[in-house]
Amino acid sequence: MATLKDVAKKAGLTVSTVSRILNNRGYISDDARKRVYDAIKELDYHPNEVARALQNKRSKIIALIVPHVKHPYFSSVISEIEAQAFMKGYRLLIFNSRGREEKEKEILDICKENRVAGIILCSGTVNVRLFEDIGVPLITYERYIDGSTASVECDNINGGELAARHLIGLGCRKIIMINGKSSTVSMPADLRWVGFTRICKAEGISYIEIAAEPEDFNSMDYLEKIRNSFSDHPDVDGVFASSDVIASQVIQICREIGKKIPEDIKLVGFDNTKIASLTTPQITTIHQPVDDMAKLAVGLLTDSIEGMTVPERSILPVSLIVRGSTDKDLL
Amino acid sequence: MATLKDVAKKAGLTVSTVSRILNNRGYISDDARKRVYDAIKELDYHPNEVARALQNKRSKIIALIVPHVKHPYFSSVISEIEAQAFMKGYRLLIFNSRGREEKEKEILDICKENRVAGIILCSGTVNVRLFEDIGVPLITYERYIDGSTASVECDNINGGELAARHLIGLGCRKIIMINGKSSTVSMPADLRWVGFTRICKAEGISYIEIAAEPEDFNSMDYLEKIRNSFSDHPDVDGVFASSDVIASQVIQICREIGKKIPEDIKLVGFDNTKIASLTTPQITTIHQPVDDMAKLAVGLLTDSIEGMTVPERSILPVSLIVRGSTDKDLL
Repeated sequence: MATLKDVAKKAGLTVSTVSRILNNRGYISDDARKRVYDAIKELDYHPNEVARALQNKRSKIIALIVPHVKHPYFSSVISEIEAQAFMKGYRLLIFNSRGREEKEKEILDICKENRVAGIILCSGTVNVRLFEDIGVPLITYERYIDGSTASVECDNINGGELAARHLIGLGCRKIIMINGKSSTVSMPADLRWVGFTRICKAEGISYIEIAAEPEDFNSMDYLEKIRNSFSDHPDVDGVFASSDVIASQVIQICREIGKKIPEDIKLVGFDNTKIASLTTPQITTIHQPVDDMAKLAVGLLTDSIEGMTVPERSILPVSLIVRGSTDKDLL
Repeated sequence: MATLKDVAKKAGLTVSTVSRILNNRGYISDDARKRVYDAIKELDYHPNEVARALQNKRSKIIALIVPHVKHPYFSSVISEIEAQAFMKGYRLLIFNSRGREEKEKEILDICKENRVAGIILCSGTVNVRLFEDIGVPLITYERYIDGSTASVECDNINGGELAARHLIGLGCRKIIMINGKSSTVSMPADLRWVGFTRICKAEGISYIEIAAEPEDFNSMDYLEKIRNSFSDHPDVDGVFASSDVIASQVIQICREIGKKIPEDIKLVGFDNTKIASLTTPQITTIHQPVDDMAKLAVGLLTDSIEGMTVPERSILPVSLIVRGSTDKDLL
């Protein structure tokens, strides 16, 4: 395999000049630059990222920690972040934190050992304080933590408001919110609940909260919880589910108990993942701009790696996407 | 940050002895081992993976290349492979090859530059020949390539047979297979088609192939194709879809054209991803043992990294999971 020395020899320059060219340091003549790039091409030279990481103390690797790789929301987050990181010349090391709460320390150690350039943390169960010690930029995603480098969130409060207004506007008078709340960890759904209840109260509409547990999130199985909710509250005419995965199971239970969507029950989900357009009927939902959020998260991280000051909190707008679960004409 | 030297000093041993202990080489007394581990703990020492990779020429990093990160099938593959790699002390660098066919060379270069220990390739569009040059073990997943280190597949032929037998056993007499075939690349669905047609022919049942295009796979949108199929073949009474994502859209079109599932149309999917249990009705499908396949792929890769000879092809059994899309009692 060709070395830096071979490239320098071929280009007729010193190793330190070639190194300056590769690292874009100091004045370089166009002629020297061209000779180096020609030599690199001819010799099929691959700069050794590992050696470079050792020298620079940091690699071109971003660690992405998500709570649940195969949950449709997080799989779309991974997809968008990978695309953005790739474009900026960064690679993505991926960690699933689900069921691995006790392993935070282990993930942290791996980040240290591999000299990652930065971390994007989407997990609500990981203790952020531990990660601050690592001394690299940390972006939290859909989670605001005082002390992290920066957070990227969607406007969860407005999402809850949009859902409530839409359901009330369609005539719903008793609405259940099925919520991925947790008693121990702050979740994005908490803010959706704030927005949702604010509108229900203002409009004098009765509402009920059904709190899902972390186990439900891990298994993505909410059927029992939803079945019980309808049996406890048979007169409900609207449902706001804090994810499309939950909403898809509301459709299943409604079929089971003979309630028609949208005639008897109107349903709004959250996220606008692919699943919202794969169910029958398709799910009216709150769109999270995951592509823009991913772009921003990677941009803030790389800016921060380069020493720039970045906004500590960025909140992106959400929007309502109307489909068959609230509009009969769209079935 | 503590160095190996600090650990040696604290433990009262030479650096080379500590290095032997950390790398598990030669005879080490229990006392020396204990002193080193105590020193590591006390100093909060983190062995530098980057330096180790440089020394060993290879890192503890596996590159995973998938064609479509957020496709439900591949998101579950990523999830299982991450879990298996983590348990074996490997980290996962992830690459999406979708829409990036021209970037094969770029992904390959990154693998070289980062000195990955091995590669798991799930992508059908990537040219395997290019990857052979890299000189590290390469496992192909759901794709058999002569010349790769080893492949891990499920029994796609038997999957097609199981689907055909189930539909015919339920009385279907004209069956459509909607197929993720490609004219240019060999796909797992090709083998499903082989098994499917073998049974249809043996039983004298008429069948039609609807070939989906790579663009349909990229967008996960098969609605138009399915709509046209039903309009061209109104007397169809059974559908075998080569993925659950396709099957979920067959349900949508059946509702649109007023066909009841399973009364008028019986439907079998493939993969047994989460989506198969999130639709209404739930989808009868062919279960791929993704957890076992992931475990095997990571095991074969690490065995191969350690210099062992591994089977060049491993085919795991599939099974039929019956749900509401073929059985009215399970609705």
